[in-house]
Amino acid sequence: MKEENTHILIGPFSQVLTMAELPETGPIADEQLQVLENVGVLVYEGRIMQVGNYDKLLQHATDSNYIFHKIDQPMVLLPGLIDAHTHICFAGSRANDYAMRVAGKSYLEIARSGGGILDSVRKTREATLVELVDLLKKRCDRHLSEGVTTCEVKSGYGLTTEEELKMLEAIQLVNKHHALELIPTCLAAHMRPPEHTDSRLYLQEVVTQLLPQVKEQGLANRVDIFIEETAFSEEESLEYLAAAKELGFEITVHADQFSTGGSRIAAEAGAVSADHLEASGEEEFALMREAGVVATVLPGASLGLGMHYAPARRMLDGGLCVAIATDWNPGSAPMGDLLLQAALLGASEKLTIAETLAGITVRAAKALNLTDRGIVAKGMQADLIAFPTDNYKEIFYQQGKLKPMQVWKRGREV
Amino acid sequence: MKEENTHILIGPFSQVLTMAELPETGPIADEQLQVLENVGVLVYEGRIMQVGNYDKLLQHATDSNYIFHKIDQPMVLLPGLIDAHTHICFAGSRANDYAMRVAGKSYLEIARSGGGILDSVRKTREATLVELVDLLKKRCDRHLSEGVTTCEVKSGYGLTTEEELKMLEAIQLVNKHHALELIPTCLAAHMRPPEHTDSRLYLQEVVTQLLPQVKEQGLANRVDIFIEETAFSEEESLEYLAAAKELGFEITVHADQFSTGGSRIAAEAGAVSADHLEASGEEEFALMREAGVVATVLPGASLGLGMHYAPARRMLDGGLCVAIATDWNPGSAPMGDLLLQAALLGASEKLTIAETLAGITVRAAKALNLTDRGIVAKGMQADLIAFPTDNYKEIFYQQGKLKPMQVWKRGREV
Ligand SMILES: [Zn+2]
Ligand SMILES: [Zn+2]
Repeated sequence: MKEENTHILIGPFSQVLTMAELPETGPIADEQLQVLENVGVLVYEGRIMQVGNYDKLLQHATDSNYIFHKIDQPMVLLPGLIDAHTHICFAGSRANDYAMRVAGKSYLEIARSGGGILDSVRKTREATLVELVDLLKKRCDRHLSEGVTTCEVKSGYGLTTEEELKMLEAIQLVNKHHALELIPTCLAAHMRPPEHTDSRLYLQEVVTQLLPQVKEQGLANRVDIFIEETAFSEEESLEYLAAAKELGFEITVHADQFSTGGSRIAAEAGAVSADHLEASGEEEFALMREAGVVATVLPGASLGLGMHYAPARRMLDGGLCVAIATDWNPGSAPMGDLLLQAALLGASEKLTIAETLAGITVRAAKALNLTDRGIVAKGMQADLIAFPTDNYKEIFYQQGKLKPMQVWKRGREV
Repeated sequence: MKEENTHILIGPFSQVLTMAELPETGPIADEQLQVLENVGVLVYEGRIMQVGNYDKLLQHATDSNYIFHKIDQPMVLLPGLIDAHTHICFAGSRANDYAMRVAGKSYLEIARSGGGILDSVRKTREATLVELVDLLKKRCDRHLSEGVTTCEVKSGYGLTTEEELKMLEAIQLVNKHHALELIPTCLAAHMRPPEHTDSRLYLQEVVTQLLPQVKEQGLANRVDIFIEETAFSEEESLEYLAAAKELGFEITVHADQFSTGGSRIAAEAGAVSADHLEASGEEEFALMREAGVVATVLPGASLGLGMHYAPARRMLDGGLCVAIATDWNPGSAPMGDLLLQAALLGASEKLTIAETLAGITVRAAKALNLTDRGIVAKGMQADLIAFPTDNYKEIFYQQGKLKPMQVWKRGREV
């Protein structure tokens, strides 16, 4: 029996939330969720062949090529979670910055004492490729155990051609060997590096030297920029994103975290997603809605900085497609627990469970322009997570304390 | 060698935060924390004999009565955490209520669909003593594994003499056999039970029938009441608390969650603590400060309800002793993770790490009127927790994701 011919039948599950057939944008009521009961999932070559009544699937599974993955307690099955925005390839802790920040010290005071993002840049540059791989791998282990089966990871602590390539290589290396699938993004435009005085010249260097190599070596398909007064201006960003698009990259941006402007650039540049959006309002929602930009909100940054959440409720009511991601990074978002953060955002912003869950599955897939996951349905990648309960509402009710008991990546239990 | 004569030397620890010699009320700077390095803790009969330089302690440990508990990686030692306010003795899930609440449904709509606190009362009444014991024990297991070594638990889902006694017996039974030490509180005055139309008559029944039995059987030393428009009035509460005090109980109250008034009653009744306080302001702070009432804030309820935190920063600046507890309960605070919730409160309210940690150790002990714990010092109960890091700031920086690796209750590893 060749492994390629093996059909795997997993089940029965008390409930399966398929996340199929939901509106692509705007509000979702819990009543719109497709909740199937007594369900089996048939997997072939890492993809879902069929989702249906377990007993019927069992009747047809007569062939010797079938393997049975029997579930013998009440379990709820969801699509594997997707974290559409992280910075988990980094070295060094910023615990001292954190202590200063919660004690009310300003950004400037923290920077003066040797903290801030430059500290992460320094330590990430100092780390070897092997060290970075090891650190990233550990974070991937935790994410996977908490149900994340696809995770975006940005560069952006290198800020030179060589160091950005090192980060992207580390991401590629981990991706080859880890069950958590990583979607790399080049964020060389995270901030102006300390060696440069002119941010425009730096961006030109990225466009002419770094991005062509990233493309050629297949290290990333996505380019991101931090649009903010303290990072890159709207004008610089628009120019940079046009050049990146010209080179064949998909576009995403850090927008509207402290001041607006970024979301407008996202719409004009044809970005797939605009992320953060704590400062966005109805005007920005309209621009993003018309341009089809996914709004990715980052509760982890709000929890890390102790500031308000992005207005996710109003975004949904304004017709946006809202994804939810952790922003896991060493500075503003050190926690990195997607399910917990989504649950807390949902409780505060009054999102339905359907809206919250869509934000970390099917709508997060949309934020990454991935069409083969985030849904439990035929043809989709068999990325699946199962929770020990018979009521899907328990998963959010326990606000991150109920962990998945089993996780499958491409049909293989991990 | 008799076990009673055994001295246990635990260490060396990279850092020990003793939490000793801190101000009892008001702000605390991180610089005021006593951070000892390369430390050992000598334990005798469940109490701390000595805290000091590990090598010196080792030199004196020559006797055959010594047992060595060697720590062989960088570890930070803290006093065991104290959760000063919970309702973890209950049966039944309120996941469906939660889903309705995050979807924006009102309290009334939830009650009409069979949810709300009465649902917990019904299910807790239906549960047998053995079932309650089992459910409570599981929650204690998790709390202990997350570093909580002392935990207050309230009755209040029984609301008849018999059912309240059942709850308090369940707490007593678990307390006898579980390493997590439980501090029981009688909250028969949680709400007017459905069988009564007159809340004053119900409280009289509690005072004349239930409380004397609680006292006689040694089931609890503390009495609590929920002061709120929807529960008991200020007048009723003051009368009830005076009677409970007369019977020899210590007093604590649920106060100022949605409207003020309760904290004034706490001050007048001489309560040890007033808990919740989301609605409190400077006037209430002054009353509590003058009466020496500990202000216990409950971030878990804010996270569960999706509402703002109690103004802990202003309370500290107003000179209060602020404790932090989970309020873990099946309705408004289903998460129950003390360290995580304290860290999130601290990040949002801009508390120093010292203030946050004091709130779940030494100041939480004060909220429970316990003088033998919450500090790592000679004579204290040897309730200790160790985290795998060499910098205590990491523990809060990771916002609850760094768990204690070792937990000791009265000197015994659990
Ligand atoms: Zn980010
Ligand atoms: Zn309570």
